[in-house]
Amino acid sequence: MNKVNVVVGQSGGPTAVINSSLYGVIKESFNNTDRIDKVYGMVNGIQGFIEDRYIDIRKEMSDEEIELLKTTPAAYLGSCRYKLPEEFSDSIYPAIFKKFSDLGIGYFIYIGGNDSMDTVHKLSVYAKKTNSSVRIIGIPKTIDNDLTHTDHSPGYGSAAKYVAATVRDIVMDASVYNAESVTIVELMGRHAGWITAASILARKFENDNPALIYLPENEFCLDEFVESVKKEVEKRNTVVVCVSEGIKDKEGKFICEYASESGTDNFGHKMLTGCGKYLENVVKDRLGIKVRSVELNVNQRCKEMLSSLTDINEAVMAGEFGVKACLDGQTGMMVSFKREDKNGYRIDCELTDCADVCNQEKEVPTDWILDSGKGVTQDFVEYVKPLIQGENIPVMEGGLPKYCYRK
Amino acid sequence: MNKVNVVVGQSGGPTAVINSSLYGVIKESFNNTDRIDKVYGMVNGIQGFIEDRYIDIRKEMSDEEIELLKTTPAAYLGSCRYKLPEEFSDSIYPAIFKKFSDLGIGYFIYIGGNDSMDTVHKLSVYAKKTNSSVRIIGIPKTIDNDLTHTDHSPGYGSAAKYVAATVRDIVMDASVYNAESVTIVELMGRHAGWITAASILARKFENDNPALIYLPENEFCLDEFVESVKKEVEKRNTVVVCVSEGIKDKEGKFICEYASESGTDNFGHKMLTGCGKYLENVVKDRLGIKVRSVELNVNQRCKEMLSSLTDINEAVMAGEFGVKACLDGQTGMMVSFKREDKNGYRIDCELTDCADVCNQEKEVPTDWILDSGKGVTQDFVEYVKPLIQGENIPVMEGGLPKYCYRK
Repeated sequence: MNKVNVVVGQSGGPTAVINSSLYGVIKESFNNTDRIDKVYGMVNGIQGFIEDRYIDIRKEMSDEEIELLKTTPAAYLGSCRYKLPEEFSDSIYPAIFKKFSDLGIGYFIYIGGNDSMDTVHKLSVYAKKTNSSVRIIGIPKTIDNDLTHTDHSPGYGSAAKYVAATVRDIVMDASVYNAESVTIVELMGRHAGWITAASILARKFENDNPALIYLPENEFCLDEFVESVKKEVEKRNTVVVCVSEGIKDKEGKFICEYASESGTDNFGHKMLTGCGKYLENVVKDRLGIKVRSVELNVNQRCKEMLSSLTDINEAVMAGEFGVKACLDGQTGMMVSFKREDKNGYRIDCELTDCADVCNQEKEVPTDWILDSGKGVTQDFVEYVKPLIQGENIPVMEGGLPKYCYRK
Repeated sequence: MNKVNVVVGQSGGPTAVINSSLYGVIKESFNNTDRIDKVYGMVNGIQGFIEDRYIDIRKEMSDEEIELLKTTPAAYLGSCRYKLPEEFSDSIYPAIFKKFSDLGIGYFIYIGGNDSMDTVHKLSVYAKKTNSSVRIIGIPKTIDNDLTHTDHSPGYGSAAKYVAATVRDIVMDASVYNAESVTIVELMGRHAGWITAASILARKFENDNPALIYLPENEFCLDEFVESVKKEVEKRNTVVVCVSEGIKDKEGKFICEYASESGTDNFGHKMLTGCGKYLENVVKDRLGIKVRSVELNVNQRCKEMLSSLTDINEAVMAGEFGVKACLDGQTGMMVSFKREDKNGYRIDCELTDCADVCNQEKEVPTDWILDSGKGVTQDFVEYVKPLIQGENIPVMEGGLPKYCYRK
């Protein structure tokens, strides 16, 4: 059998573990030297590949650097947001497959979210149309956990762990004074509330904070929110509220859009802020209580020292399984997770047709959201808990984690 | 010799290690059972003590809880912001000393920043005036590192480590796309730039980010800032800028105040934001480059899993030394740090008169700020590096750090 080369790319927003999946792809490829020769990395995903930007992993990376990948945040190869054209008659398709042919690519592995699975799907359809033997496989990656047909996605566990630990610390911080105060924590998730829901894990005892949790899956009513905050303050002095950045009112308008309408400053600069800052100002105005807002921002997807070891291990496993799928002759598929928890939590890898995954979004099921719309159920807690287990102890250097960088 | 009781309190904003100092006070007191009987903890500092809110540590805390103090963020005993009256004729003074007498207090130990040292100073002056034998000692605590007469303060090392590690991760995250972008990170420090300066540690190679660092010690010029950002973007595509929340223009006006003037939303709510968000909108308007701002916020003072082991150990040592100072008959003093680095970094505890410390602020020395006002020197790097060394591995439970809580 002739040996083939692998090309691997990263696409979409970074996560704490997208490089762990890259590590899995590289290691499994190196374990199959009888069938796989070179491993190329696309620089900035398919977009960079089209522009002839790629590296030969074995030449460019030392063994130590490859090991460091497992615990290096963001996207080592660089990422892109690039959508392939809908029309297969577009000249980009033959151009890409010409490059595959020139580089001896047999397996194309793409690590990304639902937009990236669209790329995997299109390339695999084109390959079939043109009788190309190149096998195209997707590895799931998203902090948002919104990919369908998989129990969860690599990247989510670390985001959930970061949110739970950080909201816990914010609750501790908010509780030191003997005075009424409200803290609003704005969390990521434009359309799906998975990340925000994970803040429930910060609640450690009865009547503990976060007292209120608002997901984008439910209509958000400003008056009801103010009333709920007021009631909670009467109960416990210190109130911490977690809100998803994507909360919308009953007209479907994002709450953060109201903030954007707040006008311009004296120099004519338009002020854009998030929903947390907006709600902070509303609470201050209407209730006159001491209030602040905290936006956890990009740290939710890149905080290496707070990532979940379970997530890292599963991300590596997904990368390895992607290579195995190629070796098995599969194409047009995404690696997906099936949960087995009869005898404790266990994840098995499967394959799902990318056509079913791409451009879809999985929301938090209605069953897992409290009827009041202000929290999540114990079933959700049971779902998310295994995903945050285990600590990543990164290699440290001079008091800071040691990462690897592309030269 | 008759045994005395100790009362210990925490005051001002929390840090990652204020409980480590509390641990030091408790352990050293328990080590001296021949001279010390009970250890009382003021709930919410001197304010709570005045209101008769205090606990008997040995009765209320298990051995495990006391151990957990070392790695529990925020203020276990609760904190306060309370200034004692200037007039010693105020009836609060005899009332406090009556309580000392009723509870058999011999040593009063107060963990806090410069406002708290004002409390220590006043109580010790009053004690001398009234021939009271109660000894009053302060333990330094501040993430801002603005206490004078000490090499640095417990709390700063962990804040510096958090900032360095987090800015590093943000730089990684910001660099994944092959496109121009600006990220503005707003860091704590209203009057002193110590925390913001620590972001220099995130810079790992030549021309790496953060490209620009602005401290409140220097005048901030908006036009110069926009021009500098523009130049940096031309050089390296991805630009990360760190700014202190307290940057001011040449009229002495805080930059964040300009944001506050940006008006009200459609419902009449006044929008208040920080300087980072303001600068984000300015860059967007003037340069038209993709830009975002990140405010690290309270996590700078409470992120237990990213705290510095050096900081924790020194905080414990400071607490222990405070008790030793009382046993030695000292009063009206703050524990301070002297650095010895002939044979590697070492800290020795000393005592400094609280009169010299209270209500003072130590800024970053001019020598350590680049003439351009856009960064800090290697001397500062040498100063801060030892403070962030060593990792805190907290006790974990269910994937999250285990803390102790007051019942």
